[in-house]
Amino acid sequence: MTSLREMAPDRLAELRRVGLSWRSSGQASLHGPLLRLAESLDRAFRLLATAGWDAEEERHPASLPAELLQRVHYLHSFPHQATFPVRLQPDEANLDEFRRGPVVDPDGHLVLTQLAPTRDVLTPAACHHLYAQHESSALDAPLYLTTRNTCFRNEPYYEPLRRQWSFTMREIVCLGSRSEAIGFLDRGRSTVDTLLKHLGLDVDWCVATDPFFRPLESPQYLMQRLEPTKHEAVYGGDLAIGSANLHHEHFGENYSISRAGEPAHSACLAFGIERWLFAVVDRYGVQPESWPDPASTMQQMVSATGGQWR
Amino acid sequence: MTSLREMAPDRLAELRRVGLSWRSSGQASLHGPLLRLAESLDRAFRLLATAGWDAEEERHPASLPAELLQRVHYLHSFPHQATFPVRLQPDEANLDEFRRGPVVDPDGHLVLTQLAPTRDVLTPAACHHLYAQHESSALDAPLYLTTRNTCFRNEPYYEPLRRQWSFTMREIVCLGSRSEAIGFLDRGRSTVDTLLKHLGLDVDWCVATDPFFRPLESPQYLMQRLEPTKHEAVYGGDLAIGSANLHHEHFGENYSISRAGEPAHSACLAFGIERWLFAVVDRYGVQPESWPDPASTMQQMVSATGGQWR
Repeated sequence: MTSLREMAPDRLAELRRVGLSWRSSGQASLHGPLLRLAESLDRAFRLLATAGWDAEEERHPASLPAELLQRVHYLHSFPHQATFPVRLQPDEANLDEFRRGPVVDPDGHLVLTQLAPTRDVLTPAACHHLYAQHESSALDAPLYLTTRNTCFRNEPYYEPLRRQWSFTMREIVCLGSRSEAIGFLDRGRSTVDTLLKHLGLDVDWCVATDPFFRPLESPQYLMQRLEPTKHEAVYGGDLAIGSANLHHEHFGENYSISRAGEPAHSACLAFGIERWLFAVVDRYGVQPESWPDPASTMQQMVSATGGQWR
Repeated sequence: MTSLREMAPDRLAELRRVGLSWRSSGQASLHGPLLRLAESLDRAFRLLATAGWDAEEERHPASLPAELLQRVHYLHSFPHQATFPVRLQPDEANLDEFRRGPVVDPDGHLVLTQLAPTRDVLTPAACHHLYAQHESSALDAPLYLTTRNTCFRNEPYYEPLRRQWSFTMREIVCLGSRSEAIGFLDRGRSTVDTLLKHLGLDVDWCVATDPFFRPLESPQYLMQRLEPTKHEAVYGGDLAIGSANLHHEHFGENYSISRAGEPAHSACLAFGIERWLFAVVDRYGVQPESWPDPASTMQQMVSATGGQWR
């Protein structure tokens, strides 16, 4: 199973002091200063989405049908990362057997009995819902959307705020022509750079690939190597706090979304909220008074442009 | 497996027009007017929590350890409702077998191979995280908390906004003495009644019990029958949009939370956001201009009392 990467005890104690609770499952609870910072970050990204592209907000469920994810071969590419929501077979004999126990063994593992068939996968990336939602659309203008979700990724190890089994992802997506998708990413990256500069956070934009299972067997991985389509904003040398992704017609073709009669291109900007929390605390320390307020910063950026971003 | 209860096609078409997308898994996506209403409702409940009791907000993960839930025998009481997050055994042979397929069968069901042991249960009610979070606390004053989470409950059937596999629950919790817990519920119910009156929503407060598996074998169910501890705000004769619950020392004892040296009593107010959406649309129809704005309504209620609620 998975293990926890040791975080320096001093660092973990500091994060606790500003509102982190850490579960050995690889999940974080937030309250106090860290929760307020997380909310301010999300408001900043929503404002970026609205002021930049008038993107419409959507809220999607915690899971989505495997059949939809398989349109883009998700489970072939990332079977090691997926988490599935399962239920017990609902017949009374099976439920009674489960209840007879031990239910939970001495190691804390559930002792499950017969499972009901399941169709769903817990959200692996927030934007998957958006392509599925707009399946079979014929767009006569670029479509800009934004959504936030709790995402699940099984990993070999977990580390507070840096690498979690479940975490919060805000995304902004463009569906349009190739030039619209590229223009969206260019402007998005440049605005994110300005935001980061105002927040005092240094990042390097690096070419990256997704963590495919058996990458050399994956045409998508080979494509990512041939033509860089994923760039990550890397803080402190090793922590990707955001990414800018060009998908070409991958989602447009597989979800039958067209733009001016051709398969739509798509692109997304993704932000890992917990990792931004880590970066701010790493940069400014544990006095919340010294932290920047990302939502106010973004509001000032919008005001300074007189709303002329679009 | 579960089935869908038929909603009148006209009603479903109306809900779609104001921003509902409905998945056959029993889950809702929101955008446009319904999403804005959902956000306003949650702001109203947060304001109620803050203005009424200075309750601290916490944000918790999507799942919690079964071992924690078993302190209150949750899986004995509600095995039929639980959903578990599971992963494949991570060895390469097992992942290869899964990928060889079919991965998803013609009915849309996943064809899973060997599963890794799992410890977690997807959140069944938002407040469970709060008792676990404050385990072993010795309180010298009542503790008021609020949290929102996506909750999973497996049901025999699903119906849009009314009964969902996953849905959004906002809760306000009091941990304190018996009189503090009872006082919290009294004031909470009365404030919720005022809010409902201003919103033009009629409810009846009804005595209810939780949906125990084999209720007659459950001491907790028998206790709920002997002394009513759960009251539901029922809209339209059959839709519980909120509940007020007195837990006595149930959580205080099992999580070792004390108040003035005695096991703490607890109580919670719970709001099912999607059900409030249904009630507003049922009452006011599909012209969002005619809907009330719950956050403004609550803000006016707070202003009218001059902040003297506490």
